[in-house]
Amino acid sequence: MYLTIYLLHVSVLINGLVCKDPKVVTENDFFTSGLNVAGDTSKNLVGSNVTTVNVGRIPGLNTLGISLVRIDFAPWGINAPHTHPRATEILTIIKGTLRVGFVTSNTENRHITKVLNEGDVFVFPEGLIHYQQNIGHDNAVVIAALSSQNPGVITIANAVFGANPDISADILAKAFQLNENTVKQLQARF
Amino acid sequence: MYLTIYLLHVSVLINGLVCKDPKVVTENDFFTSGLNVAGDTSKNLVGSNVTTVNVGRIPGLNTLGISLVRIDFAPWGINAPHTHPRATEILTIIKGTLRVGFVTSNTENRHITKVLNEGDVFVFPEGLIHYQQNIGHDNAVVIAALSSQNPGVITIANAVFGANPDISADILAKAFQLNENTVKQLQARF
Amino acid sequence: MYLTIYLLHVSVLINGLVCKDPKVVTENDFFTSGLNVAGDTSKNLVGSNVTTVNVGRIPGLNTLGISLVRIDFAPWGINAPHTHPRATEILTIIKGTLRVGFVTSNTENRHITKVLNEGDVFVFPEGLIHYQQNIGHDNAVVIAALSSQNPGVITIANAVFGANPDISADILAKAFQLNENTVKQLQARF
Amino acid sequence: MYLTIYLLHVSVLINGLVCKDPKVVTENDFFTSGLNVAGDTSKNLVGSNVTTVNVGRIPGLNTLGISLVRIDFAPWGINAPHTHPRATEILTIIKGTLRVGFVTSNTENRHITKVLNEGDVFVFPEGLIHYQQNIGHDNAVVIAALSSQNPGVITIANAVFGANPDISADILAKAFQLNENTVKQLQARF
Amino acid sequence: MYLTIYLLHVSVLINGLVCKDPKVVTENDFFTSGLNVAGDTSKNLVGSNVTTVNVGRIPGLNTLGISLVRIDFAPWGINAPHTHPRATEILTIIKGTLRVGFVTSNTENRHITKVLNEGDVFVFPEGLIHYQQNIGHDNAVVIAALSSQNPGVITIANAVFGANPDISADILAKAFQLNENTVKQLQARF
Amino acid sequence: MYLTIYLLHVSVLINGLVCKDPKVVTENDFFTSGLNVAGDTSKNLVGSNVTTVNVGRIPGLNTLGISLVRIDFAPWGINAPHTHPRATEILTIIKGTLRVGFVTSNTENRHITKVLNEGDVFVFPEGLIHYQQNIGHDNAVVIAALSSQNPGVITIANAVFGANPDISADILAKAFQLNENTVKQLQARF
Repeated sequence: MYLTIYLLHVSVLINGLVCKDPKVVTENDFFTSGLNVAGDTSKNLVGSNVTTVNVGRIPGLNTLGISLVRIDFAPWGINAPHTHPRATEILTIIKGTLRVGFVTSNTENRHITKVLNEGDVFVFPEGLIHYQQNIGHDNAVVIAALSSQNPGVITIANAVFGANPDISADILAKAFQLNENTVKQLQARF
Repeated sequence: MYLTIYLLHVSVLINGLVCKDPKVVTENDFFTSGLNVAGDTSKNLVGSNVTTVNVGRIPGLNTLGISLVRIDFAPWGINAPHTHPRATEILTIIKGTLRVGFVTSNTENRHITKVLNEGDVFVFPEGLIHYQQNIGHDNAVVIAALSSQNPGVITIANAVFGANPDISADILAKAFQLNENTVKQLQARF
Repeated sequence: MYLTIYLLHVSVLINGLVCKDPKVVTENDFFTSGLNVAGDTSKNLVGSNVTTVNVGRIPGLNTLGISLVRIDFAPWGINAPHTHPRATEILTIIKGTLRVGFVTSNTENRHITKVLNEGDVFVFPEGLIHYQQNIGHDNAVVIAALSSQNPGVITIANAVFGANPDISADILAKAFQLNENTVKQLQARF
Repeated sequence: MYLTIYLLHVSVLINGLVCKDPKVVTENDFFTSGLNVAGDTSKNLVGSNVTTVNVGRIPGLNTLGISLVRIDFAPWGINAPHTHPRATEILTIIKGTLRVGFVTSNTENRHITKVLNEGDVFVFPEGLIHYQQNIGHDNAVVIAALSSQNPGVITIANAVFGANPDISADILAKAFQLNENTVKQLQARF
Repeated sequence: MYLTIYLLHVSVLINGLVCKDPKVVTENDFFTSGLNVAGDTSKNLVGSNVTTVNVGRIPGLNTLGISLVRIDFAPWGINAPHTHPRATEILTIIKGTLRVGFVTSNTENRHITKVLNEGDVFVFPEGLIHYQQNIGHDNAVVIAALSSQNPGVITIANAVFGANPDISADILAKAFQLNENTVKQLQARF
Repeated sequence: MYLTIYLLHVSVLINGLVCKDPKVVTENDFFTSGLNVAGDTSKNLVGSNVTTVNVGRIPGLNTLGISLVRIDFAPWGINAPHTHPRATEILTIIKGTLRVGFVTSNTENRHITKVLNEGDVFVFPEGLIHYQQNIGHDNAVVIAALSSQNPGVITIANAVFGANPDISADILAKAFQLNENTVKQLQARF
């Protein structure tokens, strides 16, 4: 027997997130605030901070394939090499001067890099390792868009040396041509 | 017989645009500049100007499913009701105060609207009619991202009353409940 | 702790609609009737009527990316300019003579139009504004297919002038180059 | 060196078909005629005829994911069991009475079947084996839509027993539990 | 009113299968064993056995678009002509010598076939009828991958002659150019 | 003017690769050999070798979304941490015992790991960093499938420390919490 119970009182998780009935959405399901507020770049070692506006913050983005971030940089701060497993990124410089770059796949591993100033725009194709570095003496600000409502971020150093539990040190030693003690020291830091 | 000629000297149009061999791309295929420059809002009747950064301007965006725009508004300028036939839009207010809104499909035609200030973010789902209006006394600036490298824009009034050649006036009269003379006057303006 | 409760007695909404367990579907989940019945064209001002066969009427269409409509036209009736935000449409004339057309995106706004007779077929690409007009002296009938199980319909005049609540009259006045009183009169009609 | 030659004088094949520059398309790229003309059902053994309106006939359909067919049936004619490798089909009966059916995948192989009359609509999900049979005393006519501009058709008996060159008779004998002589007779017929 | 109940204790079916909260997945959601074990080829008439590793066996595959199978063949065993309605297949021969083939769509019905030995690789495009036959004197083993987590299998003879309930014998007689008694005998066997 | 030249004698690059006219494909467009041959694991520092069977080797795979690899491991060899920017991977152990693992996205960076023996199967979701390590005393062999005809590979250490030209050492020093001299030594090695 197949009995339909109208789901008036439960939320279903699609992509791990709540999907509302279209008839009860309001303007607040398509809205968030605060992208004018600088992220705190003093709380980590790399001098940058990413403020994320994805489907976790705007429920109405679910299934629509787009999201935004603001990235703040202290002088000489970096957004460390990372990938988005499910998105291409396009950014524009709101303030400051940055060196940006990405690296192509094997076996070329070409480093495509450029210095960007205010109003410049750059693209990081889906899944490729990329970074930004503030090379000016002041704070820098970037707005970037990603081609997924849930793009994901893999910060390479953290995922490799800060995985929980640790990846076996002998694997990383061989992969990075480091000795195991150095690997273990790195793992202790991340 | 099937003869392969290596296409060293021609460009193939994919989606109507040139696709380069990946091995010869450079940083300039992923780059453009000028998004810090305010568009001229004095050249049209609606007091706004959209600066588009899509695949036509950054060849490396082709097939990657994302693009950017900057929109400038004179005081009380509007970005007239329009759709993007192939993209969802997410915008953030860089400067100013805007009323924004979109209208849901038939038969509800719900008007989802909100006043946005600096740092606020709003989403316009794919294909729905939407607009922005500067409701402040100064210029306003928006950065928006779209979920296609070639999202397209259909400005409703222009497409309806400014189609070339004209849509028959009796159709528009009936659709908009206007008399045919009014329609013809509108068509003369667009 | 992760506890699996078999969902024997609830229906989950996918795309806002019920998805059945494949093992309990029957022929009736893939079926509907009544597309031979002319829609009533006398109940509205435009002299046409669209009978929709989408996933709301055939549950088995969910995720399959296709649906049908029948459109009936009184003599000189129109299917007013509209878009489908999520579908291309292909139609064939079962009976009668119609003028049909669509308008391309900015900035060309080319009006692609043709007179169609019985057995003629025409395509309206995804998201573009299009219309049909019966230009014969008898009723006309069309069968059309859409490339989504839930294509959506945005009747331009209704969404613009009949949004609920109203779009601010000054926005529409500026967009359509009408005075605000005319806009308010239009809004009162829709 | 990378030299761009504008392709003013060549057509590029996308999906094996010509793609025009959007700026030079005309209404005839979105049009065909003749779907009111009954196909000749007397030229084959199964008493049916499919008139196809796909991207091969309407160039503007390319990439848009939809197409149409008209199917004519002599009394007791059948549209033999077949699949569309790249499309779901939805049909409506214009005239006549048909038995239609599809078979679900292994291991159930459920036969989902129904008798349809004028105005009835039925769905055949992508890739499943399906058929139609005119069970009335007059001709029958169907209009069907498919969720691809190039859906493909695999008539099961023809592909199995009429492949060119033949599939080895011992394979078909084992698969269909026939003796090899019967298989060879069948292969001679197709 | 819209009340969110966190679904801590229920599993939602996506594509008819359970989707776990990403935070509670473990290595066992991405794992299965046993693909080294030969399937029993003696339990059916065709002398082959397919061991399937799809989303039904590895829950973590859901939405990821890939799966594996192992196929064992007795000497002269066949994997009877079949299609995968939602996947392309690529296989490699682990052991033995097989003839493989697929048939292209109407109207060519070209039979693309080749004899494969250990280490050879072959592709069967999505939705096309294909088969494998062990033409050696020993057992043969194949590993194949499919481009869907839930590709489906339609064994042609079983779906046609073993559908439940039967497809009407007169339809199959006409389609396969057999007499109805032969069809009924076949239906009795499947 | 629009002139069609039939492209009888040129090959068009789709995704950077040649696409043949479907009417002239042969069995060799869907075939390759050699996956039974062990890759040479002695030519690099990590003791593994990947033999790739993608669209570059089988032209008929283009657009079909799947490919295969064989991976050979010397005793204690590793397939160093890497990502596939456009594919999920599913592997099965043909011979040997391996530890495998992947790391989830920020901010959890969970290390999902398992020891696999012959016949075991494991999944690495799209874009996530993963590795395999032979933990046995003999050679090990893996067959893996990827959900793209052109999945790409980014070996993390090579892309980070072996990019060409180098990524600035101060960026990598900060990202990996190494001193710049260590970074430069690493860059010299890769």
